[in-house]
Amino acid sequence: MKSTIKKIAVLTSGGDAPGMNAAIRAVVRSCAYHNLECIGVYRGYEGLIEGDFKELDARSVKNIINRGGTFLKSARSDGFRTKEGRAEAFKQLKNANIDALVTIGGDGTFKGAIVFNEEFDFPIVGLPGTIDNDINGTDFTIGYDTALNTVVEAIDKIRDTANSHNRLFLVEVMGRDAGDIAINAGIGAGAEEILIPEQNMGRDRLVASLKRSKLSGKSSSIVVVSEGDQIGKNIFGLAEYIRENLEDYECKVTVLGHIQRGGAPSCYDRVLASRLGVGAVDALLNGERDVMIGIVHNKVVSVDFVESLKGANNIDEDLIRVADITSI
Amino acid sequence: MKSTIKKIAVLTSGGDAPGMNAAIRAVVRSCAYHNLECIGVYRGYEGLIEGDFKELDARSVKNIINRGGTFLKSARSDGFRTKEGRAEAFKQLKNANIDALVTIGGDGTFKGAIVFNEEFDFPIVGLPGTIDNDINGTDFTIGYDTALNTVVEAIDKIRDTANSHNRLFLVEVMGRDAGDIAINAGIGAGAEEILIPEQNMGRDRLVASLKRSKLSGKSSSIVVVSEGDQIGKNIFGLAEYIRENLEDYECKVTVLGHIQRGGAPSCYDRVLASRLGVGAVDALLNGERDVMIGIVHNKVVSVDFVESLKGANNIDEDLIRVADITSI
Amino acid sequence: MKSTIKKIAVLTSGGDAPGMNAAIRAVVRSCAYHNLECIGVYRGYEGLIEGDFKELDARSVKNIINRGGTFLKSARSDGFRTKEGRAEAFKQLKNANIDALVTIGGDGTFKGAIVFNEEFDFPIVGLPGTIDNDINGTDFTIGYDTALNTVVEAIDKIRDTANSHNRLFLVEVMGRDAGDIAINAGIGAGAEEILIPEQNMGRDRLVASLKRSKLSGKSSSIVVVSEGDQIGKNIFGLAEYIRENLEDYECKVTVLGHIQRGGAPSCYDRVLASRLGVGAVDALLNGERDVMIGIVHNKVVSVDFVESLKGANNIDEDLIRVADITSI
Amino acid sequence: MKSTIKKIAVLTSGGDAPGMNAAIRAVVRSCAYHNLECIGVYRGYEGLIEGDFKELDARSVKNIINRGGTFLKSARSDGFRTKEGRAEAFKQLKNANIDALVTIGGDGTFKGAIVFNEEFDFPIVGLPGTIDNDINGTDFTIGYDTALNTVVEAIDKIRDTANSHNRLFLVEVMGRDAGDIAINAGIGAGAEEILIPEQNMGRDRLVASLKRSKLSGKSSSIVVVSEGDQIGKNIFGLAEYIRENLEDYECKVTVLGHIQRGGAPSCYDRVLASRLGVGAVDALLNGERDVMIGIVHNKVVSVDFVESLKGANNIDEDLIRVADITSI
Repeated sequence: MKSTIKKIAVLTSGGDAPGMNAAIRAVVRSCAYHNLECIGVYRGYEGLIEGDFKELDARSVKNIINRGGTFLKSARSDGFRTKEGRAEAFKQLKNANIDALVTIGGDGTFKGAIVFNEEFDFPIVGLPGTIDNDINGTDFTIGYDTALNTVVEAIDKIRDTANSHNRLFLVEVMGRDAGDIAINAGIGAGAEEILIPEQNMGRDRLVASLKRSKLSGKSSSIVVVSEGDQIGKNIFGLAEYIRENLEDYECKVTVLGHIQRGGAPSCYDRVLASRLGVGAVDALLNGERDVMIGIVHNKVVSVDFVESLKGANNIDEDLIRVADITSI
Repeated sequence: MKSTIKKIAVLTSGGDAPGMNAAIRAVVRSCAYHNLECIGVYRGYEGLIEGDFKELDARSVKNIINRGGTFLKSARSDGFRTKEGRAEAFKQLKNANIDALVTIGGDGTFKGAIVFNEEFDFPIVGLPGTIDNDINGTDFTIGYDTALNTVVEAIDKIRDTANSHNRLFLVEVMGRDAGDIAINAGIGAGAEEILIPEQNMGRDRLVASLKRSKLSGKSSSIVVVSEGDQIGKNIFGLAEYIRENLEDYECKVTVLGHIQRGGAPSCYDRVLASRLGVGAVDALLNGERDVMIGIVHNKVVSVDFVESLKGANNIDEDLIRVADITSI
Repeated sequence: MKSTIKKIAVLTSGGDAPGMNAAIRAVVRSCAYHNLECIGVYRGYEGLIEGDFKELDARSVKNIINRGGTFLKSARSDGFRTKEGRAEAFKQLKNANIDALVTIGGDGTFKGAIVFNEEFDFPIVGLPGTIDNDINGTDFTIGYDTALNTVVEAIDKIRDTANSHNRLFLVEVMGRDAGDIAINAGIGAGAEEILIPEQNMGRDRLVASLKRSKLSGKSSSIVVVSEGDQIGKNIFGLAEYIRENLEDYECKVTVLGHIQRGGAPSCYDRVLASRLGVGAVDALLNGERDVMIGIVHNKVVSVDFVESLKGANNIDEDLIRVADITSI
Repeated sequence: MKSTIKKIAVLTSGGDAPGMNAAIRAVVRSCAYHNLECIGVYRGYEGLIEGDFKELDARSVKNIINRGGTFLKSARSDGFRTKEGRAEAFKQLKNANIDALVTIGGDGTFKGAIVFNEEFDFPIVGLPGTIDNDINGTDFTIGYDTALNTVVEAIDKIRDTANSHNRLFLVEVMGRDAGDIAINAGIGAGAEEILIPEQNMGRDRLVASLKRSKLSGKSSSIVVVSEGDQIGKNIFGLAEYIRENLEDYECKVTVLGHIQRGGAPSCYDRVLASRLGVGAVDALLNGERDVMIGIVHNKVVSVDFVESLKGANNIDEDLIRVADITSI
């Protein structure tokens, strides 16, 4: 089959994630490799509506593979949620002679793509770019590995103080619906307890467990709390409760916040983003559309958008057991 | 003068700071160098009262120069604030044949030392170990340089997101009474505005300035807020106020918190801690007491404890001007 | 089946790798969890022969998950290559009532284990601990992910200079027989060319390619060279050849060397090491022996030692293509 | 005095150093602050001759404070060593209506400036940008603090392996004529011995010292060698000599090389660069010329170019003593 695609646009949408720049670069260079034109769209779907476009050649993406964030910027777009907005976006694409679109982002990004494709039958391929690793059909999302390293490095620092002062620290990490960051970073940081939305521990079990830890000789503790966890949602209230019920233990709270989104991407995320970016252009040239390009057992795969939205993979039970055992 | 000091104890007190381990190591190795015995006291003044001592030889401090926190641990001691507590501490020192003490910490640590020396005429030399750089008579305190790097690296990460989303971030940094961390890290991180306790900017001037920034073409902004700053003390309220008065600007808050205390010390802090640790033992052997060992214009100096407590150096006016100019 | 294993020894052997401490910790804590005794063996097989043992309980491995190297140390053992040495090692194990052994290391480590098991029918389970990722039957070895990040961060620094001076840098990375580090770090660092043992590029093709790069507008270049690559083996000679054949391009060499082995492990390596350490004790309790515990598609698996020695996985052809495309 | 300066050019020259971008940014923004035009000159004096200029406004230097290298690039210029070349450069400056020049670099950069000023009476102010800290009249040069941190972090990694294998590592660090990097990074990294050009230790004294270290119970050692040190100049020969004369000690060599020049600047270097950049424009507006702007006891100062070339400050004897004591 000879592809009729001659010009591809690329945009980033939703929360930024480390490796998005590497993914854009791979899309741009893959276009150059296949002698296609490539257009960068600024500020996600919002820029699509406004026609905020820029031609990108191979040299225009040099020295960005190591940078966090997205140089194409990202934005929420209320406009793209309306039929009029999407029609305007389609017009901009047509006016610019763009034949296909690569969207990099999370589930919201893909939902928009599905609707757009239904309405205008426009070829779109997505790449999973989010630190949350909450996309079905790919083992890893772009940015997740970097976020884990950022969290673990931050907790390593906090542990210095926890150890020096025999203190208990509650550390809140990102993950609205998925405990992936919490469970992995918790194991990696050697946390005593890990509170995730997928499990409901309850305050009393937590306090009981911390008491046992102390009796077993632990002089300091780190509890990693996913922002999506029920009792963790009021992390300062949780700290108060622990203070009331656990004597002799100073309890402090740190909310890691937005440092988790930024930073130079890890090698893994750069390679993943490069592979998926190349895979996106391959897929478009192969006539695929309405799919996300993901990685499964170290192979690049295509997944229907609809499939990708079936929620995050469940937490691996093995990880919960490993967390229990290694924190004994 | 022949010194009669044969055995020196060392402890860390107050909040931990990166480089404390390097300072302990230098004290221990300096004792070994001068053929003195060295005793580590665990958990600061509290351990002094309890006689929580351990003999330290040159090898016992290997591989700690690069570690944050303090392996001797630190603790608040209510006991040492009482005459009885201090009497008990003195008894412990006498029982262990300890002739002098090196205390590493901040102003609270030195205040305790002054009282103790008045009551028991016991030789004490202090080292400034605190990330706050709020000790008079030394250009830098141990841990300050590392904390600045930690803050700047964290804000670099936040800036990735700020840039990607055209957002405003308020970032709270440590510094209860002194804006040193805020002003230096603010310049280093390229902050648009820096709120410090030494200056009272006022919310309206802040908003006016942010408006000007936006008009001048800035698409994102970082505002560094010292925890000691008046309007910054309610940083979430400040964010709310900005949201109400600055349209089109998403405003987010990140409180860096305890990550600022930990981490591997910078080269500067390791060298500073090593020099001051050696200087502490030198001073004791020279018959000095009741002094802090500091660094002034890259030379090791002795400063009376009383002098050291005269509050932090004022913010250098030059820094405020540099912050204004470079954030234009 | 009721296991008769009551006491497990653990050792690290061969070159150190980041995450070995995390693996030891997981073995020790898993023993504690199952109410087994755990013995640490110092300096690998050499310490086994000498009976250099230490009992390890859950608390004895605190605060090591984040440290590079191996606190049990590693060493080459000529003795263990002799029948007498192995007999002595067996005697030491029997004398200490040790029922099984966990060895953490690379192919040499597993070869020793196979012979030992043949001779003395002693239960041994291995964990793949090496930065080279050259073990069959596991997707990743412990330490590999960290080494990739270390290499990429180092090249990011070198790129600052390459860009500033329009220079060509040859950067030698580890990998005696396998190009995994080179190809992945090369993609991750945005290298122009990647020389790996699995491919034979030839000096002339390299120079021709660099000339094309220059014509296409590249002002600086990074060439990543695996230490196992034929033309890379004389990297300084290669630099000379390039200088003679590529005008106007200053060509510099950096041999990254041993910095690639050390450093705090990445989150991935910490979690991997924790899972495999737990898996090793599980396997022994299940009556398995003569196997390596690995990870395949994110699941912990057992692999016969003999299988594990069948050489590294081949370089994924997809990676070579991605490298070609993204460096256009 | 009313300054007649309306347009300032800025360039970087010589080896790149972290913080050069921060210095350029400060010059550019300081010009904007004073309503002056600012011109960036690419590739140092070479670009001056060729008229490779670009107008820089306040926004054009955003998001560069945290980047290593120099976005204006640097280059050696044989042309500027000739009278004709300098005449051409002067013509370019006149044609572009440039009234003054800020040069950022090392001693070679300042030498060029002196000659140029003699010939054409053109106002030039210099900033010390070099990792070597070998400029007289300033306590620190831009990039030096960052390089120290880079070296110490690299040696921390090497130490993981040294400890794990009971090995001796020789680590070569930069510093052609000055041992500043070696002595400070050596103390900071906890090196056993430090070889610097300012001291001549001799191979036999080194071996004797290493033997003593071993007898005293040290199981591994790091020796930091300045590239300018006489016996260190053949570091591989030195390793061979040590192997022959020190039994049972594996001896490895690592040449850190160009990773020392790159990387995100430390907070200190960013603040220093910002202050000196602002100071350069202040000086020009005050009618100063032929001076370097430096930092002395934390104050910005002006130093005659001629003075700045009087060689590096000597190594502080106190540092040598601290190195001896803390490595006991």
